[in-house]
Amino acid sequence: MPLILFAAPALWPEYRDALPRALAQAGISAQVVTEADPHAVDYIVYAPSAPLQDFAPFVRTRAVLSLWAGVERVVRNPTLTQPLCRMVDPALTEGMVEWVTGHALRFHLGMDRHIVNPGRLWDPTTPPIARERPVTVLGLGELGLAAARALAALNFPVRGWSRTEKHIQGLETYHGEDGLDAALTGAQIVITLLPRTPGTDNILNARTLALPARGAAVLNPGRGPLIDDDALLAALDSGQIGQATLDVFRVEPLPADHPFWAHPKVTVTPHIAADTRADSASAVLAENIRRGEAGEPFLHLVDRARGY
Amino acid sequence: MPLILFAAPALWPEYRDALPRALAQAGISAQVVTEADPHAVDYIVYAPSAPLQDFAPFVRTRAVLSLWAGVERVVRNPTLTQPLCRMVDPALTEGMVEWVTGHALRFHLGMDRHIVNPGRLWDPTTPPIARERPVTVLGLGELGLAAARALAALNFPVRGWSRTEKHIQGLETYHGEDGLDAALTGAQIVITLLPRTPGTDNILNARTLALPARGAAVLNPGRGPLIDDDALLAALDSGQIGQATLDVFRVEPLPADHPFWAHPKVTVTPHIAADTRADSASAVLAENIRRGEAGEPFLHLVDRARGY
Repeated sequence: MPLILFAAPALWPEYRDALPRALAQAGISAQVVTEADPHAVDYIVYAPSAPLQDFAPFVRTRAVLSLWAGVERVVRNPTLTQPLCRMVDPALTEGMVEWVTGHALRFHLGMDRHIVNPGRLWDPTTPPIARERPVTVLGLGELGLAAARALAALNFPVRGWSRTEKHIQGLETYHGEDGLDAALTGAQIVITLLPRTPGTDNILNARTLALPARGAAVLNPGRGPLIDDDALLAALDSGQIGQATLDVFRVEPLPADHPFWAHPKVTVTPHIAADTRADSASAVLAENIRRGEAGEPFLHLVDRARGY
Repeated sequence: MPLILFAAPALWPEYRDALPRALAQAGISAQVVTEADPHAVDYIVYAPSAPLQDFAPFVRTRAVLSLWAGVERVVRNPTLTQPLCRMVDPALTEGMVEWVTGHALRFHLGMDRHIVNPGRLWDPTTPPIARERPVTVLGLGELGLAAARALAALNFPVRGWSRTEKHIQGLETYHGEDGLDAALTGAQIVITLLPRTPGTDNILNARTLALPARGAAVLNPGRGPLIDDDALLAALDSGQIGQATLDVFRVEPLPADHPFWAHPKVTVTPHIAADTRADSASAVLAENIRRGEAGEPFLHLVDRARGY
């Protein structure tokens, strides 16, 4: 009977019932504990915020199963030699798609001037329709691809960019450094859904923020460091970027004195775009443990060289 | 060569080029004029705001082609004996779907507390996912059905209600007076996309507004009289309805002293949800004129008995 160490104490109240239930539904007899002798642990369920930092003593552990989609912190841990799996929670993907489509439509429809309209202005100017509003999604992983597909289903012309070449039906795709400028040029909505790697830090900077159409929106539900904060503020002040809705930041919670809070063209959402839900995440954990026990390949295994 | 009277002077600047271009693309030689001897007119392009009110002299007119989707004003005109066609503009449908999905997601995600957040509150409470948020669409015509389908594609569980029985794949449908309560009960978002008829006036009233889940949102992009304004205000004040976003009103523009403007739970949008676009609407007009000339049945013919 495998021993599962749940090494994310803050999340234990959510998973205490959900994880054993999911394991039972997957037909797995396992013991789930929050403390254990490292030598006895078969699987670690992990969150980057957990106190566990030294994976060396876990000599028989078959996999570290992250509760987070983003693994940039744990992937750099030199003691981690066990296979590492990202969380790909269907509810997390759905939540992300909802945040992205919702805020894209909010900008597209110009909602803010109706939500806050103290002058009671009745101005029946209609927005363009979505098929006239080009959108670019940076990142075509699980989340970026799902967001791109949902936006395309709403008729937005969608361009997608990824580090390596990808061909996806119904999507105009670009890749690599050379493709980035072509992907961004003329976009009216830019969405950053890249993993954090040295190659993606500040991918939106003074140079690349000049490429979208004047007045474009930037939506960042990915990772804070994807955007050069000062360059974004300058682009907002000049009018080159018309609106930014940001869910992730270099420091979280976003400090109260950060200029994003005060900027009239910035909306801050508190890292809610992609939240893992215990029920659906537990089903993913149980499936990976089932695979580990059956000797099948793990789902969502992280490629250490790429960093995600 | 058919003679087309364009009887909507306010819209002529938009259609002056678009309509002849669309007719040419449909292979139709026709003359488009803004004034004509009624006896010579083959087709009338019409908006309810037009000065033309007496259709009796138009004895050879084969069809009156409305530029509006809603025809409740013109359908009651006793001099109108010619076939009447509603506008079903694909761009209008798309614009409506965008307004509905955008404002449904706005409520679903609780956007307003992030858009206006002077206290810089960082509260990472995540909303439920769409599949946990039941939506009811009243009206399953061209627009209601398109909105229902788009919401279902975003994973919302959608119930649809129509006056007469309809069966639509992927949609839980209800109909008639008996079905209305079942369609509304427990809904967290209610969208009214019914035509205005004596049977739909005040369909959302004190009794029916008590049926959705407490705190539900009401979105009305249909017709102002579908909602009893006072009953809605009372339901908002009691907390039974949590938010209302209204695009249509009994009097438009909405008078500056109407309580909707001042109510903190009401968002007014200025009749922009469904706007006809000259290019796409002209293509629909041209297709109906082509059909008239070829002796084929008209598209989007109004049923006078039903009123839409």
